[in-house]
Amino acid sequence: MIGKLNHVAIAVPDAEAAGKIYRDTLGAKITAKVAQPDHGVWTVFVELPNTKIELIEPLGDNSPIAAFLAKNPKGGMHHVCYEVEDINAACAQMKKMGATITGTGEPRIGAHGKPVVFMHPKDFSGTLIELEQV
Amino acid sequence: MIGKLNHVAIAVPDAEAAGKIYRDTLGAKITAKVAQPDHGVWTVFVELPNTKIELIEPLGDNSPIAAFLAKNPKGGMHHVCYEVEDINAACAQMKKMGATITGTGEPRIGAHGKPVVFMHPKDFSGTLIELEQV
Repeated sequence: MIGKLNHVAIAVPDAEAAGKIYRDTLGAKITAKVAQPDHGVWTVFVELPNTKIELIEPLGDNSPIAAFLAKNPKGGMHHVCYEVEDINAACAQMKKMGATITGTGEPRIGAHGKPVVFMHPKDFSGTLIELEQV
Repeated sequence: MIGKLNHVAIAVPDAEAAGKIYRDTLGAKITAKVAQPDHGVWTVFVELPNTKIELIEPLGDNSPIAAFLAKNPKGGMHHVCYEVEDINAACAQMKKMGATITGTGEPRIGAHGKPVVFMHPKDFSGTLIELEQV
């Protein structure tokens, strides 16, 4: 069912500063910092030949990554995102297998304008997994 | 400098059980569990179209992931591995930029039989980064 690894998300206190480290120390191509007010994050992407790294910084008072950064003030790996062809079929499969979709349990539009769900880490060896329809 | 994302490593208490979740719930292709005694881990790979997930379980008394799993008993994202063309050039660049290579500071042969170094998370927004010469 899952296809490509769409991105690895890394929560950071300062996405621009983190991006500069990827650019200057690791020699990677990065994008400009963009506000994603609907998702409570700022993003900078590190563009790799086969996938991307999403550097996410809290935006606003109710950022979904605020608690993670309070626990990990220097930042850390936050989630992985896998591509799926059909988000509704993926959700049906998740429910059938007893895995927990976070939030309402229904797909919503993600940071890339496509339907996504987040799967609870308790069902996936402690890893928060995003599924994105592409 | 960095090229493809070679893999994302996820530390888990039981690599075979974790692999089955990726196979049965997420519908991914997985490999058999293999002992890597030189590296203190068991591995199961989740093979994706553009990269792979390395599920790592502690092996032996001095596993390098034992402390991580003591802190995160259910498992969690452990490191990301980027490909580089020339590990010695990469090490020179890391030192020039003031980033810390763990261990002796010199490349060693990694779990895939190729020279690797691990970069200290303190220099990379809390993320442990492996660089592997391919």
